[in-house]
Amino acid sequence: MEAFDFDRYDRVRPIRWTGDALELLDQRKLPFAVDYVHCGDYAAVADAIANLTVRGAPAIGIAAAWGAVLAAREVEADTGAQALERLEPAFQRLNAARPTAVNLAWALARMRRALLDAGAGWREALLREAETIATEDLAANRRMGALGASMIEPGSRVLTHCNTGSLATAGFGTALGVIRAGVAQGRIDKVFAGETRPWLQGARLTVWELQQDGILPTLIADAAAAHLMRTGEVQWVIVGADRICANGDTANKIGTYQLAIAARHHGVKFMVAAPSSTVDLETPSGDAIHIEEREPTELFHIGGVRTAAEEIEAWNPVFDVTPHELIDVIVTERGIIERPDEAAMRAAFG
Amino acid sequence: MEAFDFDRYDRVRPIRWTGDALELLDQRKLPFAVDYVHCGDYAAVADAIANLTVRGAPAIGIAAAWGAVLAAREVEADTGAQALERLEPAFQRLNAARPTAVNLAWALARMRRALLDAGAGWREALLREAETIATEDLAANRRMGALGASMIEPGSRVLTHCNTGSLATAGFGTALGVIRAGVAQGRIDKVFAGETRPWLQGARLTVWELQQDGILPTLIADAAAAHLMRTGEVQWVIVGADRICANGDTANKIGTYQLAIAARHHGVKFMVAAPSSTVDLETPSGDAIHIEEREPTELFHIGGVRTAAEEIEAWNPVFDVTPHELIDVIVTERGIIERPDEAAMRAAFG
Repeated sequence: MEAFDFDRYDRVRPIRWTGDALELLDQRKLPFAVDYVHCGDYAAVADAIANLTVRGAPAIGIAAAWGAVLAAREVEADTGAQALERLEPAFQRLNAARPTAVNLAWALARMRRALLDAGAGWREALLREAETIATEDLAANRRMGALGASMIEPGSRVLTHCNTGSLATAGFGTALGVIRAGVAQGRIDKVFAGETRPWLQGARLTVWELQQDGILPTLIADAAAAHLMRTGEVQWVIVGADRICANGDTANKIGTYQLAIAARHHGVKFMVAAPSSTVDLETPSGDAIHIEEREPTELFHIGGVRTAAEEIEAWNPVFDVTPHELIDVIVTERGIIERPDEAAMRAAFG
Repeated sequence: MEAFDFDRYDRVRPIRWTGDALELLDQRKLPFAVDYVHCGDYAAVADAIANLTVRGAPAIGIAAAWGAVLAAREVEADTGAQALERLEPAFQRLNAARPTAVNLAWALARMRRALLDAGAGWREALLREAETIATEDLAANRRMGALGASMIEPGSRVLTHCNTGSLATAGFGTALGVIRAGVAQGRIDKVFAGETRPWLQGARLTVWELQQDGILPTLIADAAAAHLMRTGEVQWVIVGADRICANGDTANKIGTYQLAIAARHHGVKFMVAAPSSTVDLETPSGDAIHIEEREPTELFHIGGVRTAAEEIEAWNPVFDVTPHELIDVIVTERGIIERPDEAAMRAAFG
């Protein structure tokens, strides 16, 4: 990775702090418009997380941290502890914006600790902590990219799902960071991207983001993945995570579990790449994860156009759980865990 | 099935012969417009098959048979054999309209035989054969519905894929016929329909068609199927077929194979329902099936709205092959084949 040209291969930044507001690249409009939404207060940030202006587990954690900085403007306090008490409603609202990804709660827990550790300088401490969370995320992703890519044989072709790139993080990405690094190192010859219904993160975001870096992925329907594997065209499935449990069970975008089953069926390797902030040792296994279900209407429209019959029912879970038995490798910035299980997870993160 | 009310449960007819033209329910526009396309000559029928105005393996066979009737208007001949010679270009064009479903070639082979068997009355023979193909298809579907439903325990919930209903056949449907019969008999409590990207046959056609009959299915993203199975919410996956090989390997809509793998992983039963015209003993196994790949652009637009980034590549196979080992039951109008393999298939159809 010495020669890795980060400027060439990582151009997109979804979260910008202007000094007095948060600007979020509107991922509902990509790739057709590159607009930043201006968030002048924490309520706007909470809304932006809930309505998917910003999405991706690490990115919503970072956005929430900046939301806490904005919330601090609305309170006066002499100490961090006093500020935390007054900020509680804001923290709770930010925390409730999305339920499945642990990074949101994790980032807010860091902000709470920063407040508790601070005295009169709590405002400055909060700002520094938000900056640190973002900086550490980018560094973790670059490290993870190098580690993950080292597992991949030169000449490999890979399939990814959803968007796990710069758009989903402070930059570089998790699974897409591994893919970026793998392409740069000549290990990955071809990238397939599942379109990721209903929100089309693959078709709209992953394809666009890789294009910015000069990588041209091949889009497939989600339902074509097993057929692709059967043709022998992919050696790795590489995905991100929204929560990794104590036993290695992993919540990620709906469809991930199906890919893991198909990968095992075909002997295709399955890699999860996520920062250690995604690991949640408090959740023993996938059965304990709250799977967010969004509005059925996400399945009825695309780009404002009705795509389904009228007056129908739909079931729209937006995450699923992949049991650790189906995961070959979990990569975090702390290292590589092969054949993850509770013992391996506790050894690495306990 | 004695009390089955076919009028109540089977209202849609996609193919209408007017006496001098073929009218095809335009499945590209459903469910937002119910328009019939007028086909006054065989070339219009071939185009309608290729551009998906009419789709579904049995339906395209029936449409092609009527296409041959229309082609006959353009030739003069004293005998059926002579007519067949002159109709060869029309037969070839109709046959080439779609490559994967065997029913197209099967229906045209029947029309050829009818011509060869006919003397001076070849025009009338051709017309009668087209009518017979359609009538037999409807009868086969009703029989298949009864047989397939008999396999399903009362209180079951089922998942289907693509559209295999009246819209895909002369009426009643194959897999959807089994589901209709199962609902009518109180064996099926709930129907889940995969939306079936890229063409959204599930979201647009299956949901609409079942609504016409008062059945309200629940739509899911294709990628949510394995998660659905994991929740224990489905006991059967029931799908149609475009070609069933001599060993039971089955080509069907892209995504079917993925469902079969996930079903086996969860102990969910997997049923293929198709008329015997879909069985192709000339094709030994799935490896020999030509899988149609359609334009990548089908993955870039929905309802005329761009849904993916610009200037990208895509891979758009529209069928896949489910190996017979993953199929629990094949149902045709001739009977039920459990655990299909070459011996069982040859015993039933050889």
